[in-house]
Amino acid sequence: MSSEFEIIQRYFKRPTNDTILGIGDDAAIIAPTAKMELAISTDTLVSGQHFFEDVDPYKLGYKAISVNLSDMAAMGARPRWVTLSLTLPKKLIEYNEVWLSEFARGFHELAQMHHVALIGGDTTSGPLNIGVQIIGEIESGQSLRRDGAKSGDDIWVSGYLGDAALALKFELQKIKLTDKEAELCMSALHMPIARIELGQLLTGLAHSAIDISDGLMADLGHILVSSRSAAIIQLEAVPCSEVLKRFLPSSLAVQCLLAGGDDYELCFTAPKKNRNSIESIAQKLKIPLTMIGEITQGEGLLVMDAEGREITVEKRGYDHFAS
Amino acid sequence: MSSEFEIIQRYFKRPTNDTILGIGDDAAIIAPTAKMELAISTDTLVSGQHFFEDVDPYKLGYKAISVNLSDMAAMGARPRWVTLSLTLPKKLIEYNEVWLSEFARGFHELAQMHHVALIGGDTTSGPLNIGVQIIGEIESGQSLRRDGAKSGDDIWVSGYLGDAALALKFELQKIKLTDKEAELCMSALHMPIARIELGQLLTGLAHSAIDISDGLMADLGHILVSSRSAAIIQLEAVPCSEVLKRFLPSSLAVQCLLAGGDDYELCFTAPKKNRNSIESIAQKLKIPLTMIGEITQGEGLLVMDAEGREITVEKRGYDHFAS
Repeated sequence: MSSEFEIIQRYFKRPTNDTILGIGDDAAIIAPTAKMELAISTDTLVSGQHFFEDVDPYKLGYKAISVNLSDMAAMGARPRWVTLSLTLPKKLIEYNEVWLSEFARGFHELAQMHHVALIGGDTTSGPLNIGVQIIGEIESGQSLRRDGAKSGDDIWVSGYLGDAALALKFELQKIKLTDKEAELCMSALHMPIARIELGQLLTGLAHSAIDISDGLMADLGHILVSSRSAAIIQLEAVPCSEVLKRFLPSSLAVQCLLAGGDDYELCFTAPKKNRNSIESIAQKLKIPLTMIGEITQGEGLLVMDAEGREITVEKRGYDHFAS
Repeated sequence: MSSEFEIIQRYFKRPTNDTILGIGDDAAIIAPTAKMELAISTDTLVSGQHFFEDVDPYKLGYKAISVNLSDMAAMGARPRWVTLSLTLPKKLIEYNEVWLSEFARGFHELAQMHHVALIGGDTTSGPLNIGVQIIGEIESGQSLRRDGAKSGDDIWVSGYLGDAALALKFELQKIKLTDKEAELCMSALHMPIARIELGQLLTGLAHSAIDISDGLMADLGHILVSSRSAAIIQLEAVPCSEVLKRFLPSSLAVQCLLAGGDDYELCFTAPKKNRNSIESIAQKLKIPLTMIGEITQGEGLLVMDAEGREITVEKRGYDHFAS
C-alpha cells in the first residue's frame, strides 16, 4: 500500500509558479500581492452527507474545489491558493488506487483552469472527509459582503436554480427524468460551475452577494439578517431550467427551486442604477442574470406567486444539524 | 438541537482585532502586513487515529490548535489566523452539548494566548474530524525550511522526546506509571506546547527546522531527504524526561524516544558558529536545547549507542497508511 508521502508525491504534488514554497514542508510559503486583501474560506465534503460513497471520484475531486471557488466568487475575490485535507478510508487505498488518481485528476483539472495552486495539505486515514481551504485576493475594501444590502436594491441570481436538488430527487428515485434531463441535472449536482468571473466583475456594482449552497431562501435570508433588511421575491421570476419547469407548480419543484441547495449560483443585490451594467455583464459572460425581487425595510423574506399570494415552503434550506 | 449557525455563534464566534471580516460571510477578509510572506498549513485530527473518542474535549480543542501552531513554529513564523473545519457526529451534539463548549474553551484558550484569531470555518455532521488551517507571517526569505541543512551543521532538539508515546503505551495498559509520572506524560500527549517563540528566534540562526510529529527519526529523515544530506546522532544525547529514562535501555523506551511521535518539539540544524547564540535562546526561553548529532555528506541517518554501535529501531515513525 502507498505511504502518506507516496500518496502526496504521486497524486497531488504539481509544479506551481505562484508559490515560494509548496507541498513538502511544515507549511507552504506564499507572497501575497502588495496592497491586496486576502479572502480565506474552507468547505468540507463528508461521505453520506454531501455525496454518496460510490460517487465518481473524478467528479468528487472537481466538486471539492468547485464549492470553494464558489465562496471566492461570492466575495468577488480572485482565487489563488488551496490546501487539501484528505481523510481516506484505508480500504479505499488498498483496493482501489484508481480512486485517488481520478479524484486528483478532477481536483487539478479545475484548479489549473483557474490558475489556482495546490500548496499543501494533510493526509490521514479515517472515514472519508474532504476539506479544502482556499485563499483569494481582492483589492482593499472591494469584497462583496453579506451585510451591504440596502432597501430598494434589486435582488439578482445567476444561472438557473433547483436542478441540483432535482438531480438528488432523481438519484433517490423520487422522480423520473429522461436520459437527457437526467444528464443536465446531474451535471448541476456533481460538477457545479463557480461564478468566479462574475463575482469579480460585480465588485463596485453589487452591494452584497452570497453563493447559493443551502438554498435560495436560506442564503438570501443570510443577506437579510446581516444587512438588517427584508425582501420580497416573485416565484415566477426565479430562473429555472426547462427540466424543472416541467415539474412546476408541484410543491416538490417549488421546494427544489427555493430551498434546494447545492446550486452554487450567486445571489446578489445592487442599486437600480446599475441594471444596465449588470445586463452587460450577463451578455459578456453569457450567463443568465435575473432580477427576482427587491430589498425592503424591516425583516423577513416574502415569496409571492403570480396572483400576489404569499408562498410558504416546508424547509427553507439545508441545515446539517436539523433533526 | 442546535442548528449549524447557532453552534458557530454560540461556541466559536469571538471578537477579533486583526481581521477585516471574520466568521459569518462566504469568506473571511484579512489584510496581511506589508512585505511579509505568509506561512500556510493545515493539520487534521481524526477520531480513532489521533485520539480516543472519549478524550477530554477541552484537551482536544487545545491540541487541535497546538499541533497547527507547531507547524508555524517549525517555519519560524508568527501565527496570526486560523479557520476550523469541524465534522461532528449528531449524537455528540444531541446528548452532550457540554462537549462543544469544552472543545471551544480549549481551542480559544490557546488561540488567545498566542493572539491568533479564529476567522472562519465549516461545520458539518459526520464522523468526528477536526481540521485546522493556520496562517502565519514571516519576513521575506526568513522561513526555516527542511531543505537548508548543510554538512557540518549541529543537530538540535528542544525539550524532551518520547513522553507522549510513553503516555500512549500507558493508556493502552502496556506499561505502568506512578500517578505523578502519568500526569507528566499525559500532559505531553494531550496538551503539547508549540515552540512558537523558539521558532521565531531561530530565524537567521538555524539552517533548517521541522517539528517532531511523526517521531525524531522520521522527521529528521525529512530534513535529510530535502537537504540531500546524511546525519549521525548519539542515542544518549537525545534528551528525555526522568520518566522515560527509567525505562531505558528497553527497546520500548528507545522506540518512544526515537520514533514515538506526537512530541511537537523542534528539530533544527545550525552551523557550529551559532552554538553560543542558541544556548542564549535556551536560557532566555527556559527551554532545554540539546545538540544530538551532526549533519554529514551522503544519505541516511545513523543512530549510535554509547559504545559506538549502530542502533536499529523497528518503526522509524508514524505513517497513517502503513499496513
